Amino acid sequence: MKDKEFKQAHLLGIEHLSPDDIETILDTAEAFIEVSTRDVKKVPALKGKTVVNLFFEDSTRTRSSFEIAAKRLSADLINFSASVSSLKKGETLRDTVLTLEAMNPHIIVIRHAASGSPYYLTTFARSAIVNAGDGFHEHPTQALLDALTMRQKFGRLRGLKVAIIGDILHSRVARSNIILHRKLGNEVSLIGPPSLVPGEFARMGPKVYYDIRKGVEGAHAVMMLRVQAERGAKNYFPSIREYRNRFAITREIFSLANRNAILMHPGPINRDVEIDTTMADAEESVILQQVTNGIAVRMAVLYLLKGERNETLH
Amino acid sequence: MKDKEFKQAHLLGIEHLSPDDIETILDTAEAFIEVSTRDVKKVPALKGKTVVNLFFEDSTRTRSSFEIAAKRLSADLINFSASVSSLKKGETLRDTVLTLEAMNPHIIVIRHAASGSPYYLTTFARSAIVNAGDGFHEHPTQALLDALTMRQKFGRLRGLKVAIIGDILHSRVARSNIILHRKLGNEVSLIGPPSLVPGEFARMGPKVYYDIRKGVEGAHAVMMLRVQAERGAKNYFPSIREYRNRFAITREIFSLANRNAILMHPGPINRDVEIDTTMADAEESVILQQVTNGIAVRMAVLYLLKGERNETLH
Amino acid sequence: MKDKEFKQAHLLGIEHLSPDDIETILDTAEAFIEVSTRDVKKVPALKGKTVVNLFFEDSTRTRSSFEIAAKRLSADLINFSASVSSLKKGETLRDTVLTLEAMNPHIIVIRHAASGSPYYLTTFARSAIVNAGDGFHEHPTQALLDALTMRQKFGRLRGLKVAIIGDILHSRVARSNIILHRKLGNEVSLIGPPSLVPGEFARMGPKVYYDIRKGVEGAHAVMMLRVQAERGAKNYFPSIREYRNRFAITREIFSLANRNAILMHPGPINRDVEIDTTMADAEESVILQQVTNGIAVRMAVLYLLKGERNETLH
Repeated sequence: MKDKEFKQAHLLGIEHLSPDDIETILDTAEAFIEVSTRDVKKVPALKGKTVVNLFFEDSTRTRSSFEIAAKRLSADLINFSASVSSLKKGETLRDTVLTLEAMNPHIIVIRHAASGSPYYLTTFARSAIVNAGDGFHEHPTQALLDALTMRQKFGRLRGLKVAIIGDILHSRVARSNIILHRKLGNEVSLIGPPSLVPGEFARMGPKVYYDIRKGVEGAHAVMMLRVQAERGAKNYFPSIREYRNRFAITREIFSLANRNAILMHPGPINRDVEIDTTMADAEESVILQQVTNGIAVRMAVLYLLKGERNETLH
Repeated sequence: MKDKEFKQAHLLGIEHLSPDDIETILDTAEAFIEVSTRDVKKVPALKGKTVVNLFFEDSTRTRSSFEIAAKRLSADLINFSASVSSLKKGETLRDTVLTLEAMNPHIIVIRHAASGSPYYLTTFARSAIVNAGDGFHEHPTQALLDALTMRQKFGRLRGLKVAIIGDILHSRVARSNIILHRKLGNEVSLIGPPSLVPGEFARMGPKVYYDIRKGVEGAHAVMMLRVQAERGAKNYFPSIREYRNRFAITREIFSLANRNAILMHPGPINRDVEIDTTMADAEESVILQQVTNGIAVRMAVLYLLKGERNETLH
Repeated sequence: MKDKEFKQAHLLGIEHLSPDDIETILDTAEAFIEVSTRDVKKVPALKGKTVVNLFFEDSTRTRSSFEIAAKRLSADLINFSASVSSLKKGETLRDTVLTLEAMNPHIIVIRHAASGSPYYLTTFARSAIVNAGDGFHEHPTQALLDALTMRQKFGRLRGLKVAIIGDILHSRVARSNIILHRKLGNEVSLIGPPSLVPGEFARMGPKVYYDIRKGVEGAHAVMMLRVQAERGAKNYFPSIREYRNRFAITREIFSLANRNAILMHPGPINRDVEIDTTMADAEESVILQQVTNGIAVRMAVLYLLKGERNETLH
């Protein structure tokens, strides 16, 4: 593989990436997908480097994905669980991170409930900072793995129509995807109850639909969001049953999309809430492929930020 | 070492193993015991492979044993702690495991309260599944390490009498041992209060005793089970004191066993509940040897399922 | 590097170290600081060896420091979290440790609320035992990293005046530092309210001051201790505000120390409680350097106890 240029020092959000950056990350991820099919799934690209998973919110799925990605690059991975950390003892986030940094890690992967906290870290930290989800703001590796999954299906990342359905308001996944597809010039439709998709989102570019049938029409990618009961989403609609009746994806509704359409979900899925169980397991569902791509995209990001280039991927 | 044939794709229980399979695992474990005495305790047999510890019940002891075993084989080990996982968010076990699998691990080691859950995984998963204890059903690596310990002492695995004492009803350890020793044609006696050793167990082959003295008589292996207060065992007998008086192993009772008898316990032990503290520390106690053998047996299982053969153990 | 003699089998406390032992540890740590500046921060000194972090008290900071240190020496590191362990099931500390030992680790790093527990382990364990903090007793690697930090600043470890300020009574950090600096012949002053610095400490050698201005005068190292609310320190003074007014370090008070003085704190800091926020970030603050040195000192300790000598640091 010929290494691409990548001049970002951090991965804070899709917001800061150029279309070329996005392509570079996806191209690099494709190279790592090849590594994942090998019997020995390791490359020495980050040997002797330390990656810290600094998670202030539980997320076994994303944390493990970064952990596997780091280990396949031969990095040392430290899980720094914030729930048992010094924060409890009154330490500030800045002091926690400065302390971590004094241990000389190369990359800090942070998940935090406060929007903007990854950016805040870059104002004083020397490590490369990777945003693994900050509040309602961004979750860039999710949008990148979604994009990779679309590109694998359609052979391109332009000229696509992407329908995003559900709790847009509280979704960093939606936000990162909206930004990514607007940058690439794709058409984005947002679908959900008015309480979760305020009309003003239309000002950002996407079309807003309160009727799932209209919004899904002709979409290449139908992207379901999780009903996040634990974030209070239930306060925004009368009952799960009514939500399901109006906004769950079913075979009949999915058939309104493009005839090659794929069904996506960042997981974990709520079967028979936002996604009909037959659709979750349908041929058009690429939900597990998204997870597989997540490892490759995270390997790509860690590698592009701190890997030894030109000697490791051959 | 000349590699043995081993055609199992998973390790779900002793139930599915032939006597030859059992011998193959124990022979391979013996080879790994040699590795554990080396100064550099690692072999590259699983280099670049990923082993996931998927534990839905706390068990630092078994989890760590698999973790050390995997690392000594140079595997990458991911602890996927289910208590903080997506299950909390409403995900099904099948979806959790399919998500994990999409990250391309080679082996999933599962402990789960539901009997049969490891088998359930094999109906849809591509990884090798290892049962690390499922409900009241099986705990095969425990029975295998017990068998290895007996073979080391007696030089054989046939013609032995095994006495198992305590809460047989709720014990997956007892169940796996009963199955193993019935397969090998050994005599098994089950000892405990009628509430914990129902008479119908006799139909499976073993002799049932409610008097420890009679059951222990002539036994080569005296295998104590833990009083599992956390599983409600206390509902099955009037008081710990009465249980101890009738079913704890003491020097006097142990002297009724074979004169070369060994005292076994899967741990953690309750001193002066099921096991007299002097007996726990007696010369005849092989409790810690069982733990040591646990690493070797687990290395053997991981290796036989997914190791690169014919190049790693020399 | 020419390897130094080091004849200790364990690191239980500063109490058991000679001044030569201390210098050997610090010299070895300096060699590892060089390793930490390399791009590939690993040496194979503990390859194939297993280090267990056995923490009975939460301490992400110290645990992670030992974890990173072990991994940079290429050891396998097992976090054995005691809160989910067999102790809950009624197992004794001795049985927990004997079980761990049966898995053949080389080093056990223990943190435990009971003073003397690391020593207790050495009475029956075969592994090298490292004390990572035991009750109110000792925290030797902290005192060693503090000493390294002082030696880096002043070029020597003799003829220094060390002022320790705060909750001396409950501080294992203070205790280890007092012992270390008395061994080296340094002058130690202890400062705090009488309830936290009983007069009888003076019998151990240090001078006791209840007035921070007098105690700090001329000090080379001003070492703040954390107000440990979680250990009940608040029972020992009327209010945080009064504590701060009398014992917090401010620019004005710090100016009474030696003109080259450094400000130290074992972390996590309570800004504007024991340490004025401007002083925490002042040029004279070496708090983060202490953290960096912590990795090097812990690498040195692990290496001197169990490393392959004469072939690894070159």
